Amino acid sequence: MIKVGIVGGTGYTGVELLRILSTHPEVELTAITSRKEDGLPVADMYPSLRGRVALAFSAPEKARLTDCDVVFFATPHGVAMAQAPDLLAAGVKVIDLAADFRLKDVTEFSKWYGIAHSCPQILEEAVYGLPELNRAAIKGARVIGNPGCYPTTMQLGFYPLLKAGLIDASHLIADCKSGVSGAGRKAEMGLLFTETSDSFKAYSVSGHRHSPETREQLQKHSTQKIGLLFTPHLVPMIRGMHSTLYARLTQEIDNQALQNLFVDAYKDEPFVDVMPFGSHPETRSTRGSNMLRLAVHRPEVDGQPGDHVVVLVVQDNLVKGASGQAVQCMNLMFGLAETTGLLHVPVMP
Amino acid sequence: MIKVGIVGGTGYTGVELLRILSTHPEVELTAITSRKEDGLPVADMYPSLRGRVALAFSAPEKARLTDCDVVFFATPHGVAMAQAPDLLAAGVKVIDLAADFRLKDVTEFSKWYGIAHSCPQILEEAVYGLPELNRAAIKGARVIGNPGCYPTTMQLGFYPLLKAGLIDASHLIADCKSGVSGAGRKAEMGLLFTETSDSFKAYSVSGHRHSPETREQLQKHSTQKIGLLFTPHLVPMIRGMHSTLYARLTQEIDNQALQNLFVDAYKDEPFVDVMPFGSHPETRSTRGSNMLRLAVHRPEVDGQPGDHVVVLVVQDNLVKGASGQAVQCMNLMFGLAETTGLLHVPVMP
Amino acid sequence: MIKVGIVGGTGYTGVELLRILSTHPEVELTAITSRKEDGLPVADMYPSLRGRVALAFSAPEKARLTDCDVVFFATPHGVAMAQAPDLLAAGVKVIDLAADFRLKDVTEFSKWYGIAHSCPQILEEAVYGLPELNRAAIKGARVIGNPGCYPTTMQLGFYPLLKAGLIDASHLIADCKSGVSGAGRKAEMGLLFTETSDSFKAYSVSGHRHSPETREQLQKHSTQKIGLLFTPHLVPMIRGMHSTLYARLTQEIDNQALQNLFVDAYKDEPFVDVMPFGSHPETRSTRGSNMLRLAVHRPEVDGQPGDHVVVLVVQDNLVKGASGQAVQCMNLMFGLAETTGLLHVPVMP
Amino acid sequence: MIKVGIVGGTGYTGVELLRILSTHPEVELTAITSRKEDGLPVADMYPSLRGRVALAFSAPEKARLTDCDVVFFATPHGVAMAQAPDLLAAGVKVIDLAADFRLKDVTEFSKWYGIAHSCPQILEEAVYGLPELNRAAIKGARVIGNPGCYPTTMQLGFYPLLKAGLIDASHLIADCKSGVSGAGRKAEMGLLFTETSDSFKAYSVSGHRHSPETREQLQKHSTQKIGLLFTPHLVPMIRGMHSTLYARLTQEIDNQALQNLFVDAYKDEPFVDVMPFGSHPETRSTRGSNMLRLAVHRPEVDGQPGDHVVVLVVQDNLVKGASGQAVQCMNLMFGLAETTGLLHVPVMP
Repeated sequence: MIKVGIVGGTGYTGVELLRILSTHPEVELTAITSRKEDGLPVADMYPSLRGRVALAFSAPEKARLTDCDVVFFATPHGVAMAQAPDLLAAGVKVIDLAADFRLKDVTEFSKWYGIAHSCPQILEEAVYGLPELNRAAIKGARVIGNPGCYPTTMQLGFYPLLKAGLIDASHLIADCKSGVSGAGRKAEMGLLFTETSDSFKAYSVSGHRHSPETREQLQKHSTQKIGLLFTPHLVPMIRGMHSTLYARLTQEIDNQALQNLFVDAYKDEPFVDVMPFGSHPETRSTRGSNMLRLAVHRPEVDGQPGDHVVVLVVQDNLVKGASGQAVQCMNLMFGLAETTGLLHVPVMP
Repeated sequence: MIKVGIVGGTGYTGVELLRILSTHPEVELTAITSRKEDGLPVADMYPSLRGRVALAFSAPEKARLTDCDVVFFATPHGVAMAQAPDLLAAGVKVIDLAADFRLKDVTEFSKWYGIAHSCPQILEEAVYGLPELNRAAIKGARVIGNPGCYPTTMQLGFYPLLKAGLIDASHLIADCKSGVSGAGRKAEMGLLFTETSDSFKAYSVSGHRHSPETREQLQKHSTQKIGLLFTPHLVPMIRGMHSTLYARLTQEIDNQALQNLFVDAYKDEPFVDVMPFGSHPETRSTRGSNMLRLAVHRPEVDGQPGDHVVVLVVQDNLVKGASGQAVQCMNLMFGLAETTGLLHVPVMP
Repeated sequence: MIKVGIVGGTGYTGVELLRILSTHPEVELTAITSRKEDGLPVADMYPSLRGRVALAFSAPEKARLTDCDVVFFATPHGVAMAQAPDLLAAGVKVIDLAADFRLKDVTEFSKWYGIAHSCPQILEEAVYGLPELNRAAIKGARVIGNPGCYPTTMQLGFYPLLKAGLIDASHLIADCKSGVSGAGRKAEMGLLFTETSDSFKAYSVSGHRHSPETREQLQKHSTQKIGLLFTPHLVPMIRGMHSTLYARLTQEIDNQALQNLFVDAYKDEPFVDVMPFGSHPETRSTRGSNMLRLAVHRPEVDGQPGDHVVVLVVQDNLVKGASGQAVQCMNLMFGLAETTGLLHVPVMP
Repeated sequence: MIKVGIVGGTGYTGVELLRILSTHPEVELTAITSRKEDGLPVADMYPSLRGRVALAFSAPEKARLTDCDVVFFATPHGVAMAQAPDLLAAGVKVIDLAADFRLKDVTEFSKWYGIAHSCPQILEEAVYGLPELNRAAIKGARVIGNPGCYPTTMQLGFYPLLKAGLIDASHLIADCKSGVSGAGRKAEMGLLFTETSDSFKAYSVSGHRHSPETREQLQKHSTQKIGLLFTPHLVPMIRGMHSTLYARLTQEIDNQALQNLFVDAYKDEPFVDVMPFGSHPETRSTRGSNMLRLAVHRPEVDGQPGDHVVVLVVQDNLVKGASGQAVQCMNLMFGLAETTGLLHVPVMP
């Protein structure tokens, strides 16, 4: 059994880790920290876990995280990089669900997150935790920077097109929509039911932290300089993310070949579902599961195939977009079958 | 492996059976019928099942249901009683999620469902499928009438009080609230998003089909004639049911003893969670799971414990209120551990 | 033109006052205070008011409220009673949307609101602002205690039955459901979209501040001592309130006569709509309007009219349940037609 | 008083016309037709109109529409063009909220709507009812083709950029999101609460009827051939539309000048609100009102202003996107002030 610790389990990625790990057959939940909730049984905060998780929160200093095999950080940015050195020294693997180990470029990191990076050497060895595009490295990693939710959809959606060199990589557009849980569990006015329900809006259109991460990763698959216009929106739903990706073709290709690019890229992937050409995936078809679904479109212009490819990508932002992906990485790091504990059937309706 | 057939799998209780049974370790999904969708892969209708359920719908006459060990009816009222005789004759057990085998009183059945009962002898041997109050009979049953969603909450909420003889059984009040999925998957104007969202209403206040079933069952636990005022309401949410039960005490009892009645009644039940006295259970704490949670209240009057007990009961109407409960019955009928395949952790948030 | 000031306009009852008063033909919006937002144009906080309300928030000491004809308090409890004496001395009328002038019993006030009442003499002259039951007094009032949202529905629903002496007034049950805006505009975890959407729960079952107010008022219409069991619930919708009221008949009455009690009581009321007997009013049928709708039911028992009356009452909690009612009182106090500025047609769907 | 008839008043644009027209000071509602609901008081179908609209539905042949001054068609496509000739001959003006008089190109009309146009001469004189871009023609029109909801946002968003000749008009992208009421009041499975709530999806990505209309109109403002990639999505909200428009600059321009293009274009428009540069308009800020709000963005690339302009446009799809705009046209056609009866303050929250 893998002994697992969780730092900062009071947020939504934390409770989602608990939901997944509490039924993971190879995991023993060992510690979950929260200074503020020290002593409180986890199930008192999350009644959904009553009878299923016996653990109580404990203050970080009591948590004996160094006895764990792996520690997940479901914390704000900056926490994982402060604690990672000691854990690694003690032989504990680290998976950070925040941004501390995502961006290789420390200047970009400082610019977007407002703090200097405290352990650049560890950052250097850290592995970007997107299994579909980085599986081998994840298997051997000690430190994982788990991808952001938006970047997961953008990368898996653009990747087959970039790899084939078919599109203008300098003018990618990603119009993305997220459920409210993507903003985390924070008592902020803008996240109230009364402020978000029955309404829709864009946010951070001038620039969002997930842009540099996505550009850095997409650049690996293109010789052209990546240009990305990324527009996030807030949808009045709890979970779910839908990315509508626009790319302009620079070469002719027929629709069947276009579809095949995606089918071939993901044919062995347990958590990527390439739907039939022209499908319209719904976010609810992934609710509560680690599955990402996508569909390829080629809108016609004057009755002819147009020069834009539109890729629709959906996932549960808290699972494949966060905690499920982190467990997927853990499975790889510990030599388990990649799908272990992750085969929840989506809850629909 | 238990060979399972499903009749009428295109509705919400049908797809929920599929969600649960597709990961049940002792079940082999053998057939699912739909005349209208004959030949259509189930996953084409429910993309949430892509990659998880390979079965296609088949017309009833091709489905070879008599080769199954058990057949679930997720159909409108009237279908199960038409097909049950042949299946039973072939040695197949039957679990009906509709009302055909719930009401022992055929006159009441005709009155509320508008049709005569076609097989009263089978009705006589049919067992009411509420495991917590009827476990022994379920184990030996060939035919199960799976309880309605509302009746499950009302029975489990009132039972400890009735059994103790503490309340006026002739004036029970149940103010119940259901998510929209309780109305099924029907193209009706009144169920549109635009007609139900951001609104709340009562319905069928003058009389609802779940009343006679509940009265009939509650009567087993009281010598007094049961009187029940049941008011259903529609909540703008997909899943979830909340019943607020009011009963007037006829004897004095202190709050600790009151709470103990419930704790004792359900202490060995894997799917009933008696929360601490005075709790406020939320429906979402059961989303996607077979768990029913309840909490007991005793509002004060002029600073003294009043003469009303208020019991708050929540469940997922599609799981403990329908398909999960049906699988719980199946587990009992086939000698499996009652919780087999039913330990989903609720999806929250 | 009536010069109007608003103290504490940043909450939902404040912005709703602005929505209503900005198109009121006899009102000149003169001042709106907020210490925290001093100088901020109101429309910057509420873009719905862009181009419609030119006013900016001003700190209380700059607001010159004593130049107004009437000041509305859309503040937490305790603010109005601190400022009312000076305003009244300056000849300014006061309408408090909070609880400072609702409860005549200062002991009850202290018990439920945790503070002593600072101006009991003013409380004595204050008038309870429910026009349908208190019109004459409101017309002559200098100080109004505007009713709570729940109490408005409970009083208008029970009143005809109490007045007729037909029911057991000692065992009234009110099972009430409110949209989330009823909790106000507060950055609290429990009010997040992710915590309240797609879920349902009761709260404050052991006791809620609106109970003593309702009992005190209902007592005026009955010689029997009022007993009230009041259970509030939270509905995942923005606006809207639905109260399901249960009363036990102590005398026989036929259904037509029962209905007539309500029709007669409210036949001249512009803001109370008695729907046909047995209707199921929806909260959305009042969205954005000052209309309260109700319907009377008499569920049958064994085919006979039962001994319970069920009254269903709906309103928009921010309009008839708060700001609209306050403006209705203002109209009466200043000799205007009662409906002036209040004839919004509900927004449906 | 203008005598107004409505054909097909049972849908959402119909009831919204009733909401608006019932308080319009210059209108007398004369007839509303529905064959199916002949004789039914409108307020029985829409309780929100109880006490406010006394009219009953009448069968078309009884409705005496030729006595009206203007008739609105809130019907499916094809109805208005069948009835318009007789009405016009009788001197009655016609405003069609469907597509019969939107597209000048009858070949395109047949292709997208599957029927031949029955009165091309009337189509020729018909005026496209977007007041901000077509005011003079509307004033003199006998027949109005009221714009689609999506096209209204796309035209008002792209217009200032096209007119200035600043962008590549051949590669416009419109990523649009609509509330569910945009699909109308139809008993379809895909519009159920249980199918649309807590989820998000795109639809008709391969081609949508609003594309040819938008292209035809935008072409008026550009010498370059318009190319438009339009992707509609369904948002789990009742009302509201948000369009995210992407255009690539072909000339350099600074951000202030960019903003001024929009400010200047709409400075005299009562129903277009140009928000400060970089704002994020919310759909709810227009709920129930005829206001359209927009904001201009210029995302940076590598710290420099990038080559894309992003315009965010919001409106209430049933008001400015349908019935409100139709009344705005009526006001112009009858020489009234354009804002008459249309100054509802948005309902927020």
